[in-house]
Amino acid sequence: MNGQVPFGVADYFWDEARNRQRLLNRLMETFRAWGYGDVIPPMFEFDANLSAQYDERLRSDMYRFLDRDGSTLSLRPEFTTSVARLVGARLHDWPMPQRFCYGGSVFRYLEPQAGQQREFWQIGGELIGASTPSADAEVLALTAASLQVADLTDYRLILGHIGYYRSLLQALALTQEQSQRLQYALNRKSEPLLADFLGDTPLRTGQRQAVETLPHLVGSDIDSILSQAERHIQNSSMHEALQSLRRIVEALAGFEVLDNLTIDLTEIRNLGYYTGISFEALTPGLGTAVGSGGRYDNLVGHFGPPQPAVGVALGVDLLLLARNRQQADDATAKPRHGRPALALAQGSAAALAEIQLLRAAGLPVQLDVNDWSVDSALDYAAQTGIADVLQWDDGFLHHRSDGDGGFDLLGPLDHGRLSHASTEPMGKPGP
Amino acid sequence: MNGQVPFGVADYFWDEARNRQRLLNRLMETFRAWGYGDVIPPMFEFDANLSAQYDERLRSDMYRFLDRDGSTLSLRPEFTTSVARLVGARLHDWPMPQRFCYGGSVFRYLEPQAGQQREFWQIGGELIGASTPSADAEVLALTAASLQVADLTDYRLILGHIGYYRSLLQALALTQEQSQRLQYALNRKSEPLLADFLGDTPLRTGQRQAVETLPHLVGSDIDSILSQAERHIQNSSMHEALQSLRRIVEALAGFEVLDNLTIDLTEIRNLGYYTGISFEALTPGLGTAVGSGGRYDNLVGHFGPPQPAVGVALGVDLLLLARNRQQADDATAKPRHGRPALALAQGSAAALAEIQLLRAAGLPVQLDVNDWSVDSALDYAAQTGIADVLQWDDGFLHHRSDGDGGFDLLGPLDHGRLSHASTEPMGKPGP
Repeated sequence: MNGQVPFGVADYFWDEARNRQRLLNRLMETFRAWGYGDVIPPMFEFDANLSAQYDERLRSDMYRFLDRDGSTLSLRPEFTTSVARLVGARLHDWPMPQRFCYGGSVFRYLEPQAGQQREFWQIGGELIGASTPSADAEVLALTAASLQVADLTDYRLILGHIGYYRSLLQALALTQEQSQRLQYALNRKSEPLLADFLGDTPLRTGQRQAVETLPHLVGSDIDSILSQAERHIQNSSMHEALQSLRRIVEALAGFEVLDNLTIDLTEIRNLGYYTGISFEALTPGLGTAVGSGGRYDNLVGHFGPPQPAVGVALGVDLLLLARNRQQADDATAKPRHGRPALALAQGSAAALAEIQLLRAAGLPVQLDVNDWSVDSALDYAAQTGIADVLQWDDGFLHHRSDGDGGFDLLGPLDHGRLSHASTEPMGKPGP
Repeated sequence: MNGQVPFGVADYFWDEARNRQRLLNRLMETFRAWGYGDVIPPMFEFDANLSAQYDERLRSDMYRFLDRDGSTLSLRPEFTTSVARLVGARLHDWPMPQRFCYGGSVFRYLEPQAGQQREFWQIGGELIGASTPSADAEVLALTAASLQVADLTDYRLILGHIGYYRSLLQALALTQEQSQRLQYALNRKSEPLLADFLGDTPLRTGQRQAVETLPHLVGSDIDSILSQAERHIQNSSMHEALQSLRRIVEALAGFEVLDNLTIDLTEIRNLGYYTGISFEALTPGLGTAVGSGGRYDNLVGHFGPPQPAVGVALGVDLLLLARNRQQADDATAKPRHGRPALALAQGSAAALAEIQLLRAAGLPVQLDVNDWSVDSALDYAAQTGIADVLQWDDGFLHHRSDGDGGFDLLGPLDHGRLSHASTEPMGKPGP
């Protein structure tokens, strides 16, 4: 294991690390712009506080270990439960609604694949203490805004509502085995399995038609899907779920989300705690959702006074993968760290002072620490992708820039050009 | 444990979380400005890769657990070894020097106290592949720059060099027990224990004087300390250590660090891997160093071809604590998240469009999701520290701002004032 990392985790460095960090920061800024406040929960929690909220699959994917006092701890596999714990246990007396955003590592024993390690980065937000359609709509709109910030213009939000299906199940009064068969058929989106279920299960005509129609309640013509679903309601709570969806869609009208919205009433996500809408964000060419969320009105109540809540979490690794697939393949073979300049200061305090100005102006500058000759510095620059070499001579920082076939000496540095310097190459100076 | 977090970890939220994140970002930007490239190592490593590098105390402070394949993993207790592993195992063929910066959680079983939890944030950098005095000086100067970025103007860098003491030990040819007694006396800075040691240990006169002088080789008059130390050298490697320190001090001349530098040749840090200089950053009123670092020329070689290296790590929690102690006590009792505005959009798409402009201009805006009356919104604002309430009416966002004794209606919002909006309160509009 000398020099190896554990199975399912990875090192990120230089440009790749910077791009991850930059995307995370931009997404956090988006949530903050919508009035969400930072929250930083611990990296691990009491296992009992987490496991009780999850379905069997997520429970079996958790990293567990013993604390010194013998209690079982888990590395957090997501953030939502930690935020619910914080609100339920400590912030229940503060005015509602409360908004939180977070970003960082979560941990699950998953089979590693492209864009999916066992340690991966989630970013997300929770809106706690509001049960209105506006609250659901805000989280959907914020999800769409986040995808745009991640440069994913080609995406769809798949929106379901667990209430429609749960209420249908109540109306059908199935045995547990029948109920599991139905859910299995729907999760597999399998017409033959559904036909088998219907063949074996005595149902009244209206109920049978409601089940037969279920797989067709998917599509982007939202009015049509909701009207079709309305024709098969078996009780008032199915009607309420549809009314809730209608009002959320109305509240979305101002946000330019509707063109990317698909209704899917067969969407039955398994993360145990959803109670109302649930949704996933999909992008072409990626088999996994880049984000998901929903309403979880029963979670905060496990830790304190109940509060309605809705939230979303996005996978930063998956967003990066999806963006790379949507953009042209511009990956460079060399690991680089941005485009710093390299400066030979010759031990001059005046040179160091100038370099500090450049850094303050936004240009990263590496200082030669090897007492290199200009030739050695140009070699290092060429090998590492550094485009600008600065050399202190005669009271000036002389500037060489990577041009066609080598580094051209451009003369003393023109400071004026650097007021908007960034990590981009400095380019040719003006006349 | 319902609602509790494990012993030694904590939730941070809203302003406190934002301040932590902001300080981390500013420090990372400082390292990047000096040409250091981001690195994100895994949150846990093979225990064998970490433990082999550490002294007994750090080894005993680590969080360990079993991976599913039975290997022992450790939550990282610091970053340096991970970076050394990355360079040794994967980046040894890339041009040297290589610069890395990092920030994030590390984990140690410590007794929790102010500014010191078991999960805490480190930020730091490593300069690998250069053994020059300039390299040591750069890391010291970058440490000083980081402390200034953290608003700690009152600090001292305590600089030692393990080579002077190690070489003296070689010259003394002590037994292991004698050597431990000497180190214990020096670590305790105890003159009586040192006198006991000298009474029990037969040494030649020059050796005895060298040991007697050791506790006095501390101070800010660097020339004087180094000259005094030079008079007691017992072999050429003690001389080399002093020469190295002299050249590092020379290289620091351009950086405005020397006023804050103390030489301490009794500084014998225990983190097993230091081979040259080692240093700590101290601030008044804090019993613990806010940062520390040094040269570790033997660490990368455990994972690949050897490389000289020097680095520093700072404790973000301790920096925040030190800053709070240095600044006036301006803590607010209410947990708040910045100063977002609260907007009542009345479901208007035009209002939403205006709000998106405000967010894009840098003003965080929370949207009312409760269909609140103006009075309810003002109540919520007053309770949560929101200073600005925006209400859509008659085609305009009307602006109420928290003034003396209540919210004053200021009339339609003046967009021009918002071009430099930040999370600060918007203040009164112009005439």
